Amino acid sequence: MKAEILCVGTEILLGDIVNTNAQFISRQLANLGIEVFHQSVVGDNPDRLLEELENGFKRSDIIITTGGLGPTPDDLTKETGAKFFNRELILDKNSLENLKEHFSKMGRSYSKGNNIKQAYFPKGSKILPNPHGTAPGCAIEENGKIMIILPGPPKEVAPMFNNYVKPFLKKYSSKIIKSKTLRLCGIGEGVMAEMASDIIKNSTNPTVAPYAKEEDTILRITAEASTEDDALKLINPVEIQLKKIFGINIYGEDDIKMEEVLGKMLTDKKFTISSAESCTGGMIAAKLVNYPGISEVFKEGAVTYSNEAKINRLGVKKTTLDKYGAVSYETAREMAEGIAKTSNTDIGISTTGIAGPGGGSTEKPVGLVYMGLYIKGRVQAKKFQYFGSRNTVRKRATMSALDWVRREILSI
Amino acid sequence: MKAEILCVGTEILLGDIVNTNAQFISRQLANLGIEVFHQSVVGDNPDRLLEELENGFKRSDIIITTGGLGPTPDDLTKETGAKFFNRELILDKNSLENLKEHFSKMGRSYSKGNNIKQAYFPKGSKILPNPHGTAPGCAIEENGKIMIILPGPPKEVAPMFNNYVKPFLKKYSSKIIKSKTLRLCGIGEGVMAEMASDIIKNSTNPTVAPYAKEEDTILRITAEASTEDDALKLINPVEIQLKKIFGINIYGEDDIKMEEVLGKMLTDKKFTISSAESCTGGMIAAKLVNYPGISEVFKEGAVTYSNEAKINRLGVKKTTLDKYGAVSYETAREMAEGIAKTSNTDIGISTTGIAGPGGGSTEKPVGLVYMGLYIKGRVQAKKFQYFGSRNTVRKRATMSALDWVRREILSI
Repeated sequence: MKAEILCVGTEILLGDIVNTNAQFISRQLANLGIEVFHQSVVGDNPDRLLEELENGFKRSDIIITTGGLGPTPDDLTKETGAKFFNRELILDKNSLENLKEHFSKMGRSYSKGNNIKQAYFPKGSKILPNPHGTAPGCAIEENGKIMIILPGPPKEVAPMFNNYVKPFLKKYSSKIIKSKTLRLCGIGEGVMAEMASDIIKNSTNPTVAPYAKEEDTILRITAEASTEDDALKLINPVEIQLKKIFGINIYGEDDIKMEEVLGKMLTDKKFTISSAESCTGGMIAAKLVNYPGISEVFKEGAVTYSNEAKINRLGVKKTTLDKYGAVSYETAREMAEGIAKTSNTDIGISTTGIAGPGGGSTEKPVGLVYMGLYIKGRVQAKKFQYFGSRNTVRKRATMSALDWVRREILSI
Repeated sequence: MKAEILCVGTEILLGDIVNTNAQFISRQLANLGIEVFHQSVVGDNPDRLLEELENGFKRSDIIITTGGLGPTPDDLTKETGAKFFNRELILDKNSLENLKEHFSKMGRSYSKGNNIKQAYFPKGSKILPNPHGTAPGCAIEENGKIMIILPGPPKEVAPMFNNYVKPFLKKYSSKIIKSKTLRLCGIGEGVMAEMASDIIKNSTNPTVAPYAKEEDTILRITAEASTEDDALKLINPVEIQLKKIFGINIYGEDDIKMEEVLGKMLTDKKFTISSAESCTGGMIAAKLVNYPGISEVFKEGAVTYSNEAKINRLGVKKTTLDKYGAVSYETAREMAEGIAKTSNTDIGISTTGIAGPGGGSTEKPVGLVYMGLYIKGRVQAKKFQYFGSRNTVRKRATMSALDWVRREILSI
């Protein structure tokens, strides 16, 4: 089966919004083993929409549309679909009831003139309920051509796709595509590709591909098979090989975040932690606090931007700051030890560096960050060099800091 | 002039990346007064690319492509463009020199076999230099049809568009579209639309439109005119009217960020600040540190997640925590005063709340946040209720906190 995606909305053509629906649906179809051949966007214009349906169905078997299901007269996707398949629009009583209920829940009055339009569908189509909005979707099937009509808001598209479109489309796909992602930190895309070059070159099913993301790098293993179990059987040996090569550099799998991995480790082991941040300015604390259970172990974070705060809060020695500077191994070490001791935690992590854009010198360039790690009585310091904007430097330093704690806990 | 955008890349069809290029170019063309009629995406497949060029040039005068300019054999956009316009590919010596220089700068060796492809262009085309990558773009013009070929990476597309495509296209547009954005905090899209309903309804040129963003709400004033000056003359009176209606609720204009507005206010007035965060967990500090000059005034941030830290670091009274709880007016007030006094700053801002997903109760539901603000000897507390995920609650609370400081400084 070949599919394409047709998004309707003048706001996309004006560049007011990014078309995340096209990405979401493409990814989902790829997972179902349905190939996406084409994506397009047209405005709220029924002639151009009809033209696109005609062209699209010459190339493909399935067209999935988003948008144009609103209550206003320029929302015309269902109307145009009905025209293409030569069907009339029929009121669906169930959808009308849901619509009225939705409005009463929101404490708003239901306006018959406009909203009733959202309960009409091309005759004979399968209705796709929308618990997250007022516009249900629908699917029309005729002579091997399938049109699936979804609403515009991404928050409505995702649950509708997962709950109704996926089961509907499964019967049309004889294969599925399954991916497994390994997430790495502290190792670049190039080095990663080199270390796994034999596997990457020789893999056909599953394929192995490295990608650089903003905060980490990933290896994606993708298999094609007729069932999920078969796909996993193909992925499994390659995954084991890759894990042997990369070992501790892999911090997690699929969509897991560094703070979840570390948060779980800390709470499992009941290791308490505190942070003392200069250049990362609170980002380490903010990431840790992303993990809902963190309050058990995260005692305190200090953002000690000034030398004064480093001295008063963390007990960094004035002589250390004078002799080595705030951005130094020595200061990083004293910050980490200081926060751990004053907060009475097992672990203390610190950062001090030059995030830019100003403040750099030949000796201490922008992107230079020292980190300190106190862990159960032992204190170390490390030097890192990042490239990129102020924000990129800070984000990457934050990831490195969390990753360093993770690695140290694993090595205890 | 009618334009369309044609993005080439299998990774977009697989849903591996979001097509931000289409948005960026659409927005830029809208600003130039050139209407975008259509966006499409095809894979790295010359037949489908050629078909799309043929269809596109029936509808439109300008097609802007992105992607398919890489060094590998499946990168074929220039080749397909040359075929469509029936031209041969010619080596551009200048581009070849730049390419060699680029590789030597990166300390990598230039590989003739592959990379030389990036210095070939359809005969007679205008070359668009790429200082940010190895693939220059080009523009072909023939009988009123214009094809503009850009690379794929967004970081290369934006500067190439701004530096070369914009001046090139200006001659084809007799009008320009100019927007002015007013940014508001603490006021919803609905209320905003209601307060400005007369202006929104009666405006045609400029138009006024309200939008809800994740962290704030905006009002966009958009005018069409033949010059930028004329557009600004149309925008100006409407802008004045809106500023009268919304007053202090407008925190900034266009792409400015809250932390820049507040950072500038604090450094201009030399007001020192410190923060004490519980539920926002470092996000306030991290936002403030986004502003490069902040080190002059931001003395210290404390992330006091535990009651112990609230007591030890900030001097919150144990009796307060016992009697009112950590999430209360009283605790917020003592946190703000505590951080300001121990850091010796003019201002202290604090947050304590329930970010969720757990921890809520009927009395203190998820999304409830108390904030304290100490400013030059006076301390206040406020209650906020947010809706959304843990992360949304924390982001919105962070914006409210910064906005509250901004408003208080203005009222001094």
